[in-house]
Order: sequence, then structure tokens, then C-alpha cells
Amino acid sequence: MGNCAACCRGFWCRAKNPDVRISLPVVCFVWQIAMIILFGVFVRYDEESDAHWSEHKREKNITSDIENEFYYRYPSFQDVHVMIFVGFGFLMTFLKRYSFGGVGFNFLIAAFGLQWALLMQGWFHALDPADGQIKIGIENIINADFCVAGCLIAYGALLGKVSPVQLMVLTLFGIPLFAVEEYIILHVLHVRDAGGSMVIHTFGAYYGLTISWILYRPKLDQSKRLNGSGYHSDVFAMIGTLFLWMFWPSFNSAISDHGDGQHRAAINTYLALASSVLTTFAISSLSAKRGKLDMVHIQNATLAGGVAMGTAAEFMITPYGSLIVGFCCGIISTFGYLVITPFMEKYMKIQDTCGVHNLHAMPGVLGAVVGAITAATASESVYGHEGLVNTFDFKGKYAERTPATQGGFQAAGLCVALAFGIVGGAIVGFILRLPVWGDPSDDNCFDDEVYWEVPEDEESIPPILEYNIFTLHLHLVI
Amino acid sequence: MGNCAACCRGFWCRAKNPDVRISLPVVCFVWQIAMIILFGVFVRYDEESDAHWSEHKREKNITSDIENEFYYRYPSFQDVHVMIFVGFGFLMTFLKRYSFGGVGFNFLIAAFGLQWALLMQGWFHALDPADGQIKIGIENIINADFCVAGCLIAYGALLGKVSPVQLMVLTLFGIPLFAVEEYIILHVLHVRDAGGSMVIHTFGAYYGLTISWILYRPKLDQSKRLNGSGYHSDVFAMIGTLFLWMFWPSFNSAISDHGDGQHRAAINTYLALASSVLTTFAISSLSAKRGKLDMVHIQNATLAGGVAMGTAAEFMITPYGSLIVGFCCGIISTFGYLVITPFMEKYMKIQDTCGVHNLHAMPGVLGAVVGAITAATASESVYGHEGLVNTFDFKGKYAERTPATQGGFQAAGLCVALAFGIVGGAIVGFILRLPVWGDPSDDNCFDDEVYWEVPEDEESIPPILEYNIFTLHLHLVI
Amino acid sequence: MGNCAACCRGFWCRAKNPDVRISLPVVCFVWQIAMIILFGVFVRYDEESDAHWSEHKREKNITSDIENEFYYRYPSFQDVHVMIFVGFGFLMTFLKRYSFGGVGFNFLIAAFGLQWALLMQGWFHALDPADGQIKIGIENIINADFCVAGCLIAYGALLGKVSPVQLMVLTLFGIPLFAVEEYIILHVLHVRDAGGSMVIHTFGAYYGLTISWILYRPKLDQSKRLNGSGYHSDVFAMIGTLFLWMFWPSFNSAISDHGDGQHRAAINTYLALASSVLTTFAISSLSAKRGKLDMVHIQNATLAGGVAMGTAAEFMITPYGSLIVGFCCGIISTFGYLVITPFMEKYMKIQDTCGVHNLHAMPGVLGAVVGAITAATASESVYGHEGLVNTFDFKGKYAERTPATQGGFQAAGLCVALAFGIVGGAIVGFILRLPVWGDPSDDNCFDDEVYWEVPEDEESIPPILEYNIFTLHLHLVI
Repeated sequence: MGNCAACCRGFWCRAKNPDVRISLPVVCFVWQIAMIILFGVFVRYDEESDAHWSEHKREKNITSDIENEFYYRYPSFQDVHVMIFVGFGFLMTFLKRYSFGGVGFNFLIAAFGLQWALLMQGWFHALDPADGQIKIGIENIINADFCVAGCLIAYGALLGKVSPVQLMVLTLFGIPLFAVEEYIILHVLHVRDAGGSMVIHTFGAYYGLTISWILYRPKLDQSKRLNGSGYHSDVFAMIGTLFLWMFWPSFNSAISDHGDGQHRAAINTYLALASSVLTTFAISSLSAKRGKLDMVHIQNATLAGGVAMGTAAEFMITPYGSLIVGFCCGIISTFGYLVITPFMEKYMKIQDTCGVHNLHAMPGVLGAVVGAITAATASESVYGHEGLVNTFDFKGKYAERTPATQGGFQAAGLCVALAFGIVGGAIVGFILRLPVWGDPSDDNCFDDEVYWEVPEDEESIPPILEYNIFTLHLHLVI
Repeated sequence: MGNCAACCRGFWCRAKNPDVRISLPVVCFVWQIAMIILFGVFVRYDEESDAHWSEHKREKNITSDIENEFYYRYPSFQDVHVMIFVGFGFLMTFLKRYSFGGVGFNFLIAAFGLQWALLMQGWFHALDPADGQIKIGIENIINADFCVAGCLIAYGALLGKVSPVQLMVLTLFGIPLFAVEEYIILHVLHVRDAGGSMVIHTFGAYYGLTISWILYRPKLDQSKRLNGSGYHSDVFAMIGTLFLWMFWPSFNSAISDHGDGQHRAAINTYLALASSVLTTFAISSLSAKRGKLDMVHIQNATLAGGVAMGTAAEFMITPYGSLIVGFCCGIISTFGYLVITPFMEKYMKIQDTCGVHNLHAMPGVLGAVVGAITAATASESVYGHEGLVNTFDFKGKYAERTPATQGGFQAAGLCVALAFGIVGGAIVGFILRLPVWGDPSDDNCFDDEVYWEVPEDEESIPPILEYNIFTLHLHLVI
Repeated sequence: MGNCAACCRGFWCRAKNPDVRISLPVVCFVWQIAMIILFGVFVRYDEESDAHWSEHKREKNITSDIENEFYYRYPSFQDVHVMIFVGFGFLMTFLKRYSFGGVGFNFLIAAFGLQWALLMQGWFHALDPADGQIKIGIENIINADFCVAGCLIAYGALLGKVSPVQLMVLTLFGIPLFAVEEYIILHVLHVRDAGGSMVIHTFGAYYGLTISWILYRPKLDQSKRLNGSGYHSDVFAMIGTLFLWMFWPSFNSAISDHGDGQHRAAINTYLALASSVLTTFAISSLSAKRGKLDMVHIQNATLAGGVAMGTAAEFMITPYGSLIVGFCCGIISTFGYLVITPFMEKYMKIQDTCGVHNLHAMPGVLGAVVGAITAATASESVYGHEGLVNTFDFKGKYAERTPATQGGFQAAGLCVALAFGIVGGAIVGFILRLPVWGDPSDDNCFDDEVYWEVPEDEESIPPILEYNIFTLHLHLVI
């Protein structure tokens, strides 16, 4: 028994070996081949992307090609796509020597995740009962990008401390967790959450934070010298911030209702984001000597308004309501970076590299609450009868549901998202603690050297200085 | 009296104190709260973004959701949005140590400005007489972005020399000036200016230049070491340049007429921009020893064709007409950087950091003139009867206006834009001279250290050199 | 005769003089003026961008402005535009000291090329027989961007080794070669190639590689120190990679059929690209010590799936078919960087700076083959009768063509693309060897100093080190 404990301790504590030469290729190949096989068995085009569309169009009396769902949603899809790859990717380049890992691993897991999401979400939402196959179209690929966002948020908490293989595992489990959670929230509870305050942000953040808690590294300050930004890496991160900020209206409106639904969701998100920016600058300036602004706040907390509008954006929350939500989120999120992240690291043993607790968890929860209240207080006088039915989809077996009940279900949805994030994160966290995934040692975190061939920097050998040293040598000789 | 003069002198000349710890948060909070209150009183959704849309659709016999204005304009809106935040923002990162300020303050004032613009433009253009409220939809948020562009252009002239509080004040006054000017030009004079050669570029540039003239800093060369680009900051600025350049067709077509109007505006702008690039490269190469190109020209003058097509893009200017406009603008603008900016700085005491005179003022004025001529020479043989009426909106009380008269009004519009820019800039300039705004001292301009927590740069401590010096020490000791 | 040979040798071998102060401005001015004249004679708006659109609409019984081609294709056009200028441009910033040249010359030749392409393609594809004029609309400007892509691919092979004047000449000849090749493939052979696996990628790559072969520089390793990336330039290049990757679905769907055609092309490309990413990471990791990833592979080979779907994207290749294509391309392309590029440089005397052989040539050829097979195996059971006719445009004089025949013609199209690329490249290569174009000497390649005013880098003079050296001097003196 003692022997076994010692053996176990040895197993868990053995020296880290961040060599992924076998594991990463194996994981990539095996999972990609699995995707191909599963797609071969299950995935086909839907009616609007199949070559039979012209027949389908005639059957359904659709008069024009422009009615194809593609034209309603493709511009929004491309904006969402940019958010996933450039937005999240570049936001994570802020560390001075982990830019390759930030943008590169983001690329890898998003590319895997979206395939896996098409399958998992397809089984839950898009299965054609006639032939047991998943029929995909533009809406599915938007949803796959959304699903991936949950895993990328989790990556934010772990940035610099995990291996690419661990990230692949995180994604492998994260996607089905997301799909089940989404199914329960959207279909079983019939909750509205078009921009995913609960489904994406709350889930993703708590999933990542719980994993980070389990992977806690007590000696992480051995990598302290690299756990910070550089001047240029901060500017790179602003590319990510701005593309997320600009395209968030598309994110929240991408899968909401045609017509006024998409239109309203875009406007509300646009306003909430603008409002977040001002309060973020205010708190950031207020908190520092001489009012100096901190790039970390500007890069992150300005986005909190978009997260918090994820549920309510398509509701009649009113323009000033959106501004209020953004106002509060900018404050809360910046405050989180100033106070809560250090507190969590010191007392709760949660190391959160990008501060996803401030950007996704708190605004996500707030957004869910705002959504529940807005739904509960909805009325026919504000929405009109048809508008109310369309917005909350009070049709079929939900025809009898009232706004007040809907508010309750919205709140229940938040609990589901939290539960999936925390429980799922705990399980996956323990899996990721297995000492087989090639994660870096504590003094080697936040360093691209571990997983990348890093070029020597031209700039670091300035010829003018070499010359000085040379003349100095001459002086010496003389 | 003498006492008072001395006192005044003391007041105006007291040592600069760039501490904004109180003023910036106060300004952000108070103005954001004011926005929320004003939005609460005045702003609601318009018919196409309100949940009553399905009823409205039925009333107006609109057969399909795709007819919602959202689908006509949202893709263009997103392109414009990218221009405002990434385009203008990154274009201003070119200074080697003011990239945070360039992209960050751009972000701040644009986020404030767009809210303020929705209100100000709303009172002038979108007030619903039935209930005294502003009804907003996609076109309003495009116009708000346009309005913000005017203030961002003004920022270009002042880059690195003002505090964020001054920029907020500049925006606070700039937006209403813009809204009134726009109202007079577009509604009172019934002038066409869809891409804003006059309304946006001429106004914005002269507004900024006049302020810069009043804030003239005789000892600015104390900051000379920082008033220039670095290798990487120049590449960052190219991100801004290219996003402006690529999306300018969307800018000029975003609010022009459905169908052929938007289509033609995009094509004309595309051509003018292409033509600008070639003449910019030509003049830049011609002006330097061994034909070496200057990044400042490439970053800016290549865009002049887009500015100059702001008025005429939706007219039947013909493809070769567009090329000619771009051809001239590339030359004029590059020439401006080579000759006029230094001249203005030396002899007219106007310090124009980004050269907005070359990129916005001159091409804007030229664009207004081109627009006036194109309008004056319009004919039914070219446009068709309906086309002429639609393009120039010769409807209602303007049904009798002829193209020639329209040309005259277009020219009058230019004068209005100039007057508002110069007079408004003078007034705001004097306000900004008050020594309470926390602007930097003359030897501290163009430096992010003043308003930002700037990270120490990893790269600036190259280990290899430390090693060399260390061995040198050893040599010495030995 | 001997005299003449000596003289010739002298002519060909005379010392390089990279002064372009006369030649570059002359080329830019003369060609831009020629464009204006040719546009004046030949180019007009088409029906959908002309002010007569409202009459045209009535004639054709078009009920809504949203049916204007602009709304079908403008969002895709903007995505393609971003790929051309930011995608290709930033992908070529990866060299540590050639970022200006990468993004700047890309900008120049694309801006010239698109005008020239509107003319050349117009003469072949859009000539109005009624009045002998070219009528342009949104589809023409997308095609012009495509045409430019061919020349930019060729630039990739030559990056850092040629002068801007040579690039203008390359474009001057490349565009007509492209237009003729495209005419033969798409119109004479009636081949389908919406995303240009053959027409764009195969042609462009072999055009560039052949030129590079003829311009072979045996002493290029004199510039070896600059022929590599830096840390930040690699991150800049990722901007290019990601915008290409994200918008490739728009590239392949931009000019495919309305409705299901565009829809399916986007989905297929999206999937192939995702699949490429995983196999690229796998092979890159497998090939290096300790599994370290190489940024060159991630920046390039991840895109191979998009290239290879250029022909088949609009076909019913099925989702798993797309994944398989991406799977293979990621492997082949990464393998190319590891093995084939060094082999080609050493044994075949082809210096391929960006590895266009791996990213465009091989995946392009593979894409053509995949397209031919997919076409040959198409059947009415899969496409439906109407779908088959629409997808392959079996109408008019091609009404009798069968899928099997079509497959043969597709294969013939590949041969045409190869022939035009190689023969055209050989001719243009010899022209570019004339010693009048201002190309850099062998020890001066990959260096922005040759054609650009390069700012001294702030970072390269770290104050802390100057201080050290200063104290060292003091030590010495003492």
C-alpha cells in the first residue's frame, strides 16, 4: 500500500518531458481519420446546400435564390469565423514570448473542434430522422464555430501552461460537453441564448477555470519573467481585441431570427460594447498611479459588454438597457483584473492567464441574469403578439408558456451551464493531470521555445553595438 | 492690469501635469451616464429592428425578411466598422513609441463618439415627429460611425500631443458640429455626399488642423527622437492602411441608394483607389535618393483616391473618370507629404502628425469639386430620366432642381464644411488650451509612457550581448 | 564573334545597380496613363451598376433591388479583396527584414494588376458585341482580384530577389497570359474551375517557379543571414495566413452559382481547410527534434486544402470527400517544405522563397485531378437532373456533354494551365534577366534597405546597454 502510494506519487510527480514528437502527430492523425470516417457515415449537405436545391425551391414556392439561408447568414458567419481565428488567436498573443503558442494552438484546436462540433451538435440538433444522417448548412457551421469558442475560452485560462496535446484532449471532451449542455438548455428547457452568454461563455469559462484549478502549479513564479507582455505583443493583442469587439454584433445576431431579430441583436450588442469601453478606461485609469492605463484592461474588459448581451441581444431590451449592461460589465470586468484574479491565484489556487473569469465568467453570468429578467418582463404591449411569439418561439408545445415562466427557465439554463462547466472541467482536469501529455515544467511555462522552432531575432543583435564592443576590444588591446 | 496679465500668463504657461487619474475617469463616467439617460429619454428601435416588424411587413406588403434594411447594409456596416476601429486605429500606430496611444485612444473616442452621434444625428435626421423619439436602425449606426470618422481624422493631426481628456472634449464638440454641418449640407442644401468628401473628410481635417494650429508647440522638437516610425510599427500601420484601402468601397457605398447606387459607388471607389497606389509609388520613388520608397507615403497617399470619391462615387463618373481622380490624388497627396507638411509646420505653425492635410483635406476638397462638376454635367441621356431623379433625389420639393443648380449647391456644401471645420476648430482649440486637460509637456510628446503602463521589452535585453560584456569585464580583470 | 560574346557577357553580368528612381516612376506613370486611356475607350458600367438599372429592372420583371447581383456577391468580394491585399501581403512579411517589400510590393502590383485584368478579362469575357465595350460589374471586379492572385503567387517564388520594376513587368505579362489561359480553359474547353485550382494556382505557381529558375542566383547564400524569419515577423505572417484561411470559403464560392452552388462551395472549402490544419501540425511535429513545430509549415501548408478545393468545391464532393482532400494536402504540402524545396534549390536550381511549389503548385494540380474525378463520376442520382445541368452548365451547345466527357475536359484544362505557366514563365523570365530592371545584387537580397527608407529601430539601441558600455569605458580609462 505504502509502496503503491510512493509509486503513485512517483507516477504523478515524475519530471516533465515536453516532447510531443510522438503524441501530437498521433493525436492529430488518429482524430482526423476518425473525423473522416464519422463524416463519411453521418454527414451530408442539407436542402439548401444540396444540388437538389432547385427542386426544393420549386416545391416550397421559393421565388428567388436570394432566399437561400446562405444569403441571410454568410456575412455573419464570416465575421464569427474571424472572431474565432483572428480574434481569440491574436488576443492570446499578448505574452511576450508565447505569441506562436497563442495564435498557433488556437488555430489547431479550433480546426479540430469545428469538425468534431459539426458531428456532436449534429447528432443532437440536426439529425434527419428519415435517414439517420446529419444535414449541414450555413447555420451548422456557425454553430460549430460557436461550440469551438467555448473551448478557446477554456484555453485562455490555461495559456502557456499546457501542451498542445492537452489542448486537443480538452477540446475532445469539451465539444461533447458543450453539445449536451446546449441541447439541454436550448431544446429541453427551451431557453433563448442566441449569443451564448450561458451556453458559450459561462460554460467555457468555468470549464477552463476548473481545469486550471486542478492543474494548479505552485511554483509557477519560476516562469514569472515570461508571464507578461511586451510592447509589440501588446499591439498584436489589440488586433484580436478589435476584431472581437467589432464583430461581436455579428456573433450575437448570427443565428437569431431573420429580419428584426438579427437587426435588433446587432444594434443592442453594438451599444453595449461601446458603453463597456468607457467604463473600462475609467476604472483602469482610476486604479493606477498618475492615471496610467493598463493594456490588459483595454484588451479584455472592453469586450465584456458583448459577452453580457449574449442572451438578451435579440430581446426588446431597449437601446438604453444595452448601454446599462455594458456600463456595468466594463466596471465589473476591469475590477476583476485588478482584484479578483490576484485573489483567485493567491487564495483559491486558480491561475487564470488571460483572466477569463473577468471577461467570460462574470459577464456571462450577468448576461444570463439580464436575459432572464428581460424575458420575464416581456409583454405583448412591447413586442406585439406576433413579436412575442417569434422572439421567444412560443410555438408548438411551448405555445402556452408565459414570459414569467420563460424567465424561470432562463435562470435554470444558467445553472445547467455552470454545472456542466464545473463538473466537466473537474473530470477533464484529472485526465489532463496524467503525466503523459508533455506539458512544460514550471520554469518553462509561457515560453514558445518548448513547442516551437523559434527564430533568433535579427533585432537582438544590433550591428551598431557589436561595433562598439569591437572598438572596445581594440581599446583593450591597445 | 499688469498683474492680471502676469497672472494670466502664469495660468496659461504653468508646467504641464499629464496626470489624468481624476479627470479621465470623471469624464468617462459622467458622459457615459449622460448617454444612458439621454438614450432612455430619446432612443428607440425603428420599424425594421422592432419586434413589431412582422406586423409592419404585412402592412407594407413586404414579402420576405430579406427585404429588411439589415440585409442591404449590414455587410457594408461591418466593413465601415473595421475601418473606424482597425483602419484608423492601426494607421495611427506608426510612431515607434505611441502605438498604444494611437490604437487605444482611437478606440476610446470612437466608442464615445458613436453613442453621442446616434443622439445628435438622431435629433437632426431621425426624429419621429409622432412621439419625439429617435428611431434607430442599421443606417443610423452606419451614420454614427461616419460621424466618428470626422473626429478620428482630427485626432490624426494631434496624434501624440494631446491627452485622452482633450480627445474626449474634441469629440464632445466635434460630434454636434458634424451633425449640424451635415444637416445643413445634406438636408438644407440637399447636397449629395454619400461617402463624405465634404461632410466627413474636409470638415474633419480642417477641424483638426485648426485645433493643431491653436495648440502649436514651438518646442516640439524636444520630442523629435520619438516623432518617427520604427520597423515594426510601420508594418503595424500597414494593417490600418490596407483595411482602410480594401473597405473604402464599402464606406462610399454604405448609405448610397439600393441597387445600382451601391453597386456603382463600390466600383468607382475600387478603381480610384487602385489608381492612387501607382501614382503614390511613382512620386515617392521619384523624390528620394536612389528611388527609395517612403512608408509614410505608401501608408497614407494610397488612400487619397477613396477620400476624393466620397461625393462622386454614386454618380455616373465613368470608370475612367474614377481612375483620373485617383491618379491626381495620389500625386497631390504624396506631394503634400514631401512639401506642404514641412512648409505648414515651419511657416504656418501647424503641426500635423499624420499629415491629415494631405490625406483628408486636399483630397476632400478635390472630391467636393469633382462631385460638383459631375453633378452639374449630369444629363438624362447618361442617367436616364428615372436614374437622374433617383441618383440626385430630385423629388418632392426638389423636383424642379436641375443638374446645373445641383452643381452649385454641391459647391456651396464645400464652403459650409470648410466654415464649420475652421470656426469650430478655432473655438474648440481655445477650449483645449485651458491648462486643465493633462496634456504632455513638449519633451514628452509621442510617448506612451505618459498615459500607459508600458511593459519593459523582452527584446531590449539581448542575453547574448550581456554575455559579451561580461566576458569583456573578465578580459579587463585579467 | 568572340568580341560580341565578351560584350554580351559584359552586358549580362554587369554589376547590379538597384536604383529605380527613374524606372519605377516611369513604369507607374506610363502604365497608369495607359490604363486611363484604355478604360476611357473600352470600359463602361454593366446593366446592374448603371443608372438605367431601374428601367432594366422593370424590363426583366425583377421585383426587388435585393436581386441586384451586388447583394449576391459583394460580401464575398470583400473577403476576396482582403485575401489579396492583407492575406497575400502579410503572408509575405515573414522575412525578418523584408516586411516592407512583402506587403508593399504586393500592394503595388495588385493595384496595377486589377486594372489591367479588368481590361484583359473584359476583352475575353465581358465584351458587349453591341458597342464593342466592356461592361463591368461586381463579378468582373472579383475576377480581376482572382487574376491578380495568379501574379501574387508568382511573386511568392521571387520574394526578396527582384526589383519592383521586375514585378511590374511580371504583372504586365502575367495578366494577359492569365486571361488567355482562363479563356481557353473556361470558355473553349468549358471547364468548371470556380476557385481556380488550375486557372489561378497551378498557372501562378508554375509561372513564378519558371521565372525563378531562369533568374537563378548561384551566390544567393551571400544573403543567407536575411533569408529567414524573426519572432515578430512570424506573427505578422500569421495575420496573412489566418485571413487567407478564414476567407478561402469566400474565394471558392465567390463566383459559383447562386444559391446551393455558393452555399456548398463555402462548406466544402471550410471543411478541407480544417482538415489540412491537423495534418500540417502532425507532419511538422513529426519531422523535428522533440516535436517542435515550424512556423513556416503552419503559415503555409494549413492553406493547402483551400487551394485543392478550388475546382471541386462547388461539386457534390460530399463533406467527407472535402476532409480527405484537406487531409492529403496538409501532408503533401508540409512534406514539400521539408524535402522538395531544399531538393529543388540544390538540384534543380529553383529558388522558391515562399515555397509556392508546396502551397500552390502541388495542391493546385491535385485539386485539378480531384475536380476531374469528381466531375467524371457525377450522376443524376446524386445531383438530380436540374442540379447536374446547373452545376456543370450543360446548356446550349454543351447540352449533350456527359460527366465522363467533362472529366476529360477538366484534365485537359490542367494541361493548358501548366503549359501557360511554364512557357509564359520562360519567356517572361528571359525578359526579366535583362540587366535594366534594377534588381539587387546577390548579397543584397531579402533586404528592405535596397528599395525602402528604413527607419532606425528604437529597440535596437537599448539605453541600458549603452550605459553598460559607457561604464566599461570608464573602467578602461581608470
